[in-house]
Amino acid sequence: MSMRTITRAERAQLAMVLEVSAYPKPGNVDRCHDYETTRLEHFLASAILARPALEAAERGDTGPGFLIHQAVECTGGHRGGNTHFGAFILLIPLVMGGDIKGATKVADSTTLEDAVEFYKAFAKTEVRVIPGHELDVHDPASLIELRSRGMTLHDVMLYSAPRDLVAREWINGFQMTRRGADLIHAAGCGREAVVEAFLGLLALEPDTFIIKKHGPDVAWKIMEKAREVREGLRDLQAFDQECIERGINPGSIADIIIASIYLALGEGWEWDC
Amino acid sequence: MSMRTITRAERAQLAMVLEVSAYPKPGNVDRCHDYETTRLEHFLASAILARPALEAAERGDTGPGFLIHQAVECTGGHRGGNTHFGAFILLIPLVMGGDIKGATKVADSTTLEDAVEFYKAFAKTEVRVIPGHELDVHDPASLIELRSRGMTLHDVMLYSAPRDLVAREWINGFQMTRRGADLIHAAGCGREAVVEAFLGLLALEPDTFIIKKHGPDVAWKIMEKAREVREGLRDLQAFDQECIERGINPGSIADIIIASIYLALGEGWEWDC
Repeated sequence: MSMRTITRAERAQLAMVLEVSAYPKPGNVDRCHDYETTRLEHFLASAILARPALEAAERGDTGPGFLIHQAVECTGGHRGGNTHFGAFILLIPLVMGGDIKGATKVADSTTLEDAVEFYKAFAKTEVRVIPGHELDVHDPASLIELRSRGMTLHDVMLYSAPRDLVAREWINGFQMTRRGADLIHAAGCGREAVVEAFLGLLALEPDTFIIKKHGPDVAWKIMEKAREVREGLRDLQAFDQECIERGINPGSIADIIIASIYLALGEGWEWDC
Repeated sequence: MSMRTITRAERAQLAMVLEVSAYPKPGNVDRCHDYETTRLEHFLASAILARPALEAAERGDTGPGFLIHQAVECTGGHRGGNTHFGAFILLIPLVMGGDIKGATKVADSTTLEDAVEFYKAFAKTEVRVIPGHELDVHDPASLIELRSRGMTLHDVMLYSAPRDLVAREWINGFQMTRRGADLIHAAGCGREAVVEAFLGLLALEPDTFIIKKHGPDVAWKIMEKAREVREGLRDLQAFDQECIERGINPGSIADIIIASIYLALGEGWEWDC
């Protein structure tokens, strides 16, 4: 039996469940690890409940800011806090545009209203921002500020790019997403490839989600340890355990890996072997 | 934040991912156990890929035999063998009819064409039948036989009911599904309730999937051991390990538990607490 042609929305959902079930992913929720308030089933439910927004993205119903907001609305009912906000920031333009070329076009032609919708979505998540360094999404003045500066969603991403790996993808043509997909292809079929690619990206850049939570030194150290794991100098399971115990979860890399899986699946990568 | 109203199709998908991730479920694939050829991600992918058939069921596009066939077609692309065939047999009428009352109406008004479509679907799975005791779905003569007897899908289920717990649900008003949902409600919110209900049903009846694979004595023994676990006389983890090692997977109970979760969710059970 051959795989039926799946829609882009389904491919995005598949990417979400394949990412969260891949194991071991140092510090992140996976099939063997939960955090107390954010568990495997929150991610699985979020993947299923995101469908209407992903389908609207595939149809191109509206702009990416509106669709990211819709995805947050669709999935925001559980108690697991933020699960896929960063992933939606990448998946929505990718599903709209199909691939990186199409997603870049989407990213390059956003409006002020996309930015406003994005901020409304952001305010509904529990994602942290760096005080004083970012437009505070919980402060109504931010929306006034956005409007007075006439910022598009692309401008918002440009503004956040120095401090946020996910935003940076919008600006640089989805470079880490591309790199992650290449790592997946290079690792071969099946779920081990997801772990390989995750480690590969973790060894490449300090995770900005870790920076926001634990500061740049911790993020840098984690990157170095990921390199040691890849070089066979450090045990993967022990590294995972250390990250879990210290609450160090590379959330930005996980978001990007989801986008990488989406891309790789579209390029013929076989998740099932 | 309150959960948005989810569709019946989404509720069915949610039931599928909540069932497979619940742990430990003696002998079955769960978040900590795979079988070599059927793994967690096969079940997760199947839950996502079943969507078009579940949505068609919610709209009432066509009869249950056609919709079960569609669900098998939608999800049959992976290499994990049968994942949710039994679950679809229960979910399709439940999604069509909403609840047990509606599902029973659906089950009571099937046609010969539903039976034919069901057999075509069955032939595409790798589900085993008892030679000599069942219409062999891989034998084209079975379809001629069905037609000459003028059997409806309900007749097929009646014919299979003595040897198949899932078929029996169609005949007896979804009694074990109801029982499973009651066990879920009684156990309280969250994923532990799924494990409780699974053990409860396993202690109630010998699993017919185990009977087909290992014979009635093994199935009876497993039922007795499940009772001992519930009475605190046997360790759950050790029982799980024994089942996994012997390849004893209570697949029929798992199918019914999925239907029970679907039902419980519709009755306000909270998966997330």
